[in-house]
Amino acid sequence: MHTGRMEAFSDGVLAIIITIMVLELKVPHGHEFAELKPLLPVFLSYLLSFIYVGIYWNNHHHMLHATKHVSGGVLWANLHLLFWLSLIPFVTGWMGENHFERVPTAMYGVVLLMSAIAYWILQETIIWAGASDVLRRAVGRDGKGKFALVLYACAIGLSFFRPWIACALYVAEAFIWLIPDRRIERALASSGHEK
Amino acid sequence: MHTGRMEAFSDGVLAIIITIMVLELKVPHGHEFAELKPLLPVFLSYLLSFIYVGIYWNNHHHMLHATKHVSGGVLWANLHLLFWLSLIPFVTGWMGENHFERVPTAMYGVVLLMSAIAYWILQETIIWAGASDVLRRAVGRDGKGKFALVLYACAIGLSFFRPWIACALYVAEAFIWLIPDRRIERALASSGHEK
Amino acid sequence: MHTGRMEAFSDGVLAIIITIMVLELKVPHGHEFAELKPLLPVFLSYLLSFIYVGIYWNNHHHMLHATKHVSGGVLWANLHLLFWLSLIPFVTGWMGENHFERVPTAMYGVVLLMSAIAYWILQETIIWAGASDVLRRAVGRDGKGKFALVLYACAIGLSFFRPWIACALYVAEAFIWLIPDRRIERALASSGHEK
Amino acid sequence: MHTGRMEAFSDGVLAIIITIMVLELKVPHGHEFAELKPLLPVFLSYLLSFIYVGIYWNNHHHMLHATKHVSGGVLWANLHLLFWLSLIPFVTGWMGENHFERVPTAMYGVVLLMSAIAYWILQETIIWAGASDVLRRAVGRDGKGKFALVLYACAIGLSFFRPWIACALYVAEAFIWLIPDRRIERALASSGHEK
Repeated sequence: MHTGRMEAFSDGVLAIIITIMVLELKVPHGHEFAELKPLLPVFLSYLLSFIYVGIYWNNHHHMLHATKHVSGGVLWANLHLLFWLSLIPFVTGWMGENHFERVPTAMYGVVLLMSAIAYWILQETIIWAGASDVLRRAVGRDGKGKFALVLYACAIGLSFFRPWIACALYVAEAFIWLIPDRRIERALASSGHEK
Repeated sequence: MHTGRMEAFSDGVLAIIITIMVLELKVPHGHEFAELKPLLPVFLSYLLSFIYVGIYWNNHHHMLHATKHVSGGVLWANLHLLFWLSLIPFVTGWMGENHFERVPTAMYGVVLLMSAIAYWILQETIIWAGASDVLRRAVGRDGKGKFALVLYACAIGLSFFRPWIACALYVAEAFIWLIPDRRIERALASSGHEK
Repeated sequence: MHTGRMEAFSDGVLAIIITIMVLELKVPHGHEFAELKPLLPVFLSYLLSFIYVGIYWNNHHHMLHATKHVSGGVLWANLHLLFWLSLIPFVTGWMGENHFERVPTAMYGVVLLMSAIAYWILQETIIWAGASDVLRRAVGRDGKGKFALVLYACAIGLSFFRPWIACALYVAEAFIWLIPDRRIERALASSGHEK
Repeated sequence: MHTGRMEAFSDGVLAIIITIMVLELKVPHGHEFAELKPLLPVFLSYLLSFIYVGIYWNNHHHMLHATKHVSGGVLWANLHLLFWLSLIPFVTGWMGENHFERVPTAMYGVVLLMSAIAYWILQETIIWAGASDVLRRAVGRDGKGKFALVLYACAIGLSFFRPWIACALYVAEAFIWLIPDRRIERALASSGHEK
């Protein structure tokens, strides 16, 4: 089994997730600038989630580029990741419409944390299946991945006391991951591996 | 005619079906944990349907991998399958919002049963068209497929008396199919066939 | 320019059109069988439109299979076709929710007629661009296409007097086109042409 | 990294953007012709936006056809473009439902302007990455692109005084870009370059 169709399906789901979030930006009934003001938190949470889904798409793209074949386990680990990502529009809308209140901000973090865990499971499943030597070497002990999980957990806890610090952590975490996984590119280069 | 574009179209439709179901998870207006409680049955029915659509995508992927070319009949058998699958978001939302009441639970089973029949028709159409020796040998007398149909029929009948038993049967059935069709992988391996 | 990306984009748009129509099947609030009754006309119009979009996808697939390259004109003729097809969910919902009343039934026919004209323009654009000898020979004087246009025009006129006859004509027309364009398959076979 | 998966993802997002705009055409409750009249401005703004997204898809297709490989920077420049394009359904609905009032018409122009800037950034990123000699030669000093930006800025300013002149400018600008970037086709031809 090649990676082609799994990539195509994932692209489809990610493209839809990223686009249906914009439907939470409900068209206001009036036509003044003031009508846009209550939409600002919805817009900001949309922007943050757009960046997160973009990061996942980007890293997913890199990870599968270094993968030779997919097994049944990999297919299900991928669907598990897509499941958690599919909940992002829901928590984005909830957080945005409630102006970054405590519980919605914490739930947003929970979905990000579960997505990160699901991504890690997918990565390990590919390595266990022996489908990617490059990925195994690139990831190593995966300190970056583990640090990210700890950061999400802190942000979830902080949401109940200072939601704005949690949001700042989500933004900071996005910046950490903004750069696609150079480790894979380095490992690809060092092995002279061509997919 | 190759299978490529039929796969691409099916991937698109399945990706959209799996993602629009999450739109039934309406963003609540309040911002307390209690707001999430009434969403629990909707969430559980979303989870079950996500797994079902994932199973169909997975098996569809395997079946077409063992198929050499598509005819007009195969194209329509495929659209027939997509039609029934496209009704899953509707029955999922109905069952979830009514907390697994009798009639919606039965209708959920009807759509699953019709989808299973449509999948079986697609499989037979591919075999009749002589498009896949591997599939013919893999499926054999297809005891697993027939057993599944009987199980759905039982669940539909039971919905009117004990909806929770019907739901348990739907979950059990999902587990039976969770593993992608190993019969195809075995048949592919035994014939040394490479698509 | 190859046909690949135009096919991919068209597949995406057609997959979304076919799937968002199901969103018009609004989840009812009650949980009895009686709740489904008012949805019956919406369901029937969804079924008819699903078949129509399926026909367009099918024939589009065949037409592009016989096309060697795409020009700027072909890209726009294709977008023009997608524009009219994108209005199908709107007229489907309008016709279904108004139980096949006169004006909505006529407008449904107008969108089908414009889609058929757009399909014909796309076909002629491909032939004019010299991109497909096979298509030119297969289509010939295109009696079938012209007959279809006349039938739609009749159905639109009849909608204002006997909407059910118009609906019967729409169904009949769907049956005429249900079989993918065998003319293209014959022309491909007779020329020994392999794309 | 090849351009394939970035094209597939962009196609998916653009296909969804172009199709969810039609959801703003809400199905009216009555069944007379008069019910369609208030939808006319929504329809016209949908038509204009459909053409704009079509133009972006078309030129994006041409630009990537002349691109050899993608870097991390190109992936993010592409997501940045998709972000602004994803706001088109929102401003389209706002402008249409408010019958081309001043502020919504200006905001529509702002999103078009930001999309044009994002497209220009993507183009420059591809050239900076040395990924496309053809593109570099085709674009040259890019007088056409700069003229377009000035025109959008004028239209935004005019929206507050004469919204209809701004709309006329949007339509005129669409016509300027309707023809896919022939400069790329010429540059491809002159270099005998085959991707």
